[in-house]
Amino acid sequence: MGAEDRFVELLRASLRSDESLLLGPGDDAAVIDRAAGPLVASTDTLVEGVDFLPGEDPKRLGRRAVSVGLSDLAAVGAWPEFFLLTIGFPETAGEDFPLALALAAAERAGEFGAVLAGGDLSRAAEVFLSTAIWGRPTGEVLKRSGARPGDSVFLSGWPGDAAAGLAVARARAGAEPPRGDGAWTPESLSPADETALLAAYRDPEPRLPLGRALASEGLATAAIDLSDGLGVDAGRLARASGVRLLIEVESLPLSPALLSFARLAGRDPVEMALAGGDDYELLFTVPASESGRFADPPAEWGVAVRRIGRVEAGAGAFLEEARGLRPIDRLGYDHF
Amino acid sequence: MGAEDRFVELLRASLRSDESLLLGPGDDAAVIDRAAGPLVASTDTLVEGVDFLPGEDPKRLGRRAVSVGLSDLAAVGAWPEFFLLTIGFPETAGEDFPLALALAAAERAGEFGAVLAGGDLSRAAEVFLSTAIWGRPTGEVLKRSGARPGDSVFLSGWPGDAAAGLAVARARAGAEPPRGDGAWTPESLSPADETALLAAYRDPEPRLPLGRALASEGLATAAIDLSDGLGVDAGRLARASGVRLLIEVESLPLSPALLSFARLAGRDPVEMALAGGDDYELLFTVPASESGRFADPPAEWGVAVRRIGRVEAGAGAFLEEARGLRPIDRLGYDHF
Repeated sequence: MGAEDRFVELLRASLRSDESLLLGPGDDAAVIDRAAGPLVASTDTLVEGVDFLPGEDPKRLGRRAVSVGLSDLAAVGAWPEFFLLTIGFPETAGEDFPLALALAAAERAGEFGAVLAGGDLSRAAEVFLSTAIWGRPTGEVLKRSGARPGDSVFLSGWPGDAAAGLAVARARAGAEPPRGDGAWTPESLSPADETALLAAYRDPEPRLPLGRALASEGLATAAIDLSDGLGVDAGRLARASGVRLLIEVESLPLSPALLSFARLAGRDPVEMALAGGDDYELLFTVPASESGRFADPPAEWGVAVRRIGRVEAGAGAFLEEARGLRPIDRLGYDHF
Repeated sequence: MGAEDRFVELLRASLRSDESLLLGPGDDAAVIDRAAGPLVASTDTLVEGVDFLPGEDPKRLGRRAVSVGLSDLAAVGAWPEFFLLTIGFPETAGEDFPLALALAAAERAGEFGAVLAGGDLSRAAEVFLSTAIWGRPTGEVLKRSGARPGDSVFLSGWPGDAAAGLAVARARAGAEPPRGDGAWTPESLSPADETALLAAYRDPEPRLPLGRALASEGLATAAIDLSDGLGVDAGRLARASGVRLLIEVESLPLSPALLSFARLAGRDPVEMALAGGDDYELLFTVPASESGRFADPPAEWGVAVRRIGRVEAGAGAFLEEARGLRPIDRLGYDHF
């Protein structure tokens, strides 16, 4: 038996079974019993040197790949059922690498009731991971295109924390020297701030309960998850909806940890919040009639949700500052 | 608008619509209306330098990625409905690269009625492609595990042609010198043989009609598609079924083009047929009661189907030669 077949046998022995999984990992395709209803499907990819640092721990990678994939389902208000996992890796990663990664991915998905149904392994010069996840809507599907003038703009969590966490991880790996005007070294951050920022980058939380509430209770007119940066993703929502989206600078939530990091490193925290990327928070628009629902968000959402701006007639995404409007829809990551 | 968003707009403008695709490329997830019934899902990956040569034409790559993915569905007797496409590519590939690739992939899938529902783009040092394809069974799902002693072993097409085609493509790209005892150069092959071998490698045909016939008419007890080599894949089917699989050397189909190539290049055509990989043909087992069905295969299957051996009690996959049995279940590609 080759190493690939050993991998499949070890994986099968470790995965929990699921009665609707009629044929699981190890055959040419997975077969899943499924009742009628919309299928929500999404795929997401993490690439070494682009989305994570070389030498990253496989357990952390597997967990993060699933979280990032689940974030897409959260954005449309769906709940996951099954997923497929592709792992590309170099021989030097070792035979245990894909198994540790796949088991961590399966465990993370299991926290939301989703099951690993199959996947693919490939040799590659650099590590890459791809998930294909599918599930069901929990209500009316949330699209990017439903925002209307008069809506308020809401955001979960702390934008920019993940970008700061990446900078900390880079510095810890010796890859990014202190920069800016500050005298920053990783050691100058408090342990609590470092932990918070690293967690935001390495271990994002898919906002599935929030997405479910928005969809099942009809609270939002449009939604998107922040993967490439608040600025560019706000621009996408605005363009899809044919509206202008204004983010009010004084309402932009900046975490204490981000403010500490920015002060030490001589960076602009607003810029990091707008352009950082990797946030995996939900940006969504809410009609006036539903705004009251967000005054006291239920604990089950698992995250703070704040009003950060408003929707107007027009086009583009802007930061509203005392000195005027600044276009932000190019602030973020472009995969080209 | 960034390059990634331009890509999505151009793609959407070029894709055909489908009434069951409620939300297509450009949002966070695809939403597909779907009746009840088993979902068959599979994912497959092609990596530059591993599965294809650097500099490969994006149209050819997109087409091949889909064909290879569809082959998995053929192996279980399913018919495709939708797919997701992930493209990793370096900046040097250019902005047109992913669009040409995605459109070719969508066109290829469309030949079988399948629709591009979404995907993901990522920067990467090397090109890689991943498809996640799903569909429905056309009858009882074909597994690897159903072969029984007394069954005959059948194979579609010409094993080894794709491996010879890869050698020709490499030589044409200047990457592989003539080798073995022969005085082989690409020019010494007849144009017809070169065309046939290159096509087998570059443009495999997913055996969906054959898989459908096997599943819907209940003709096969087990099936697998040949991706890593006849030897290793025969070994996988034997192990999953708990049987011994014998391939009779005199029944192994060797194409005229492969024989010409092997003679010129001083290579063993049987070895190439057993270990070559990338065949994407179906290997399947047939009970005695159904063997007659294969005497005169219908034209709609689109490929020759031949009996190449038999199933016995025991374990492993072997080539039966005049001098005895040779184990073949390690002959092929291991992705570790």
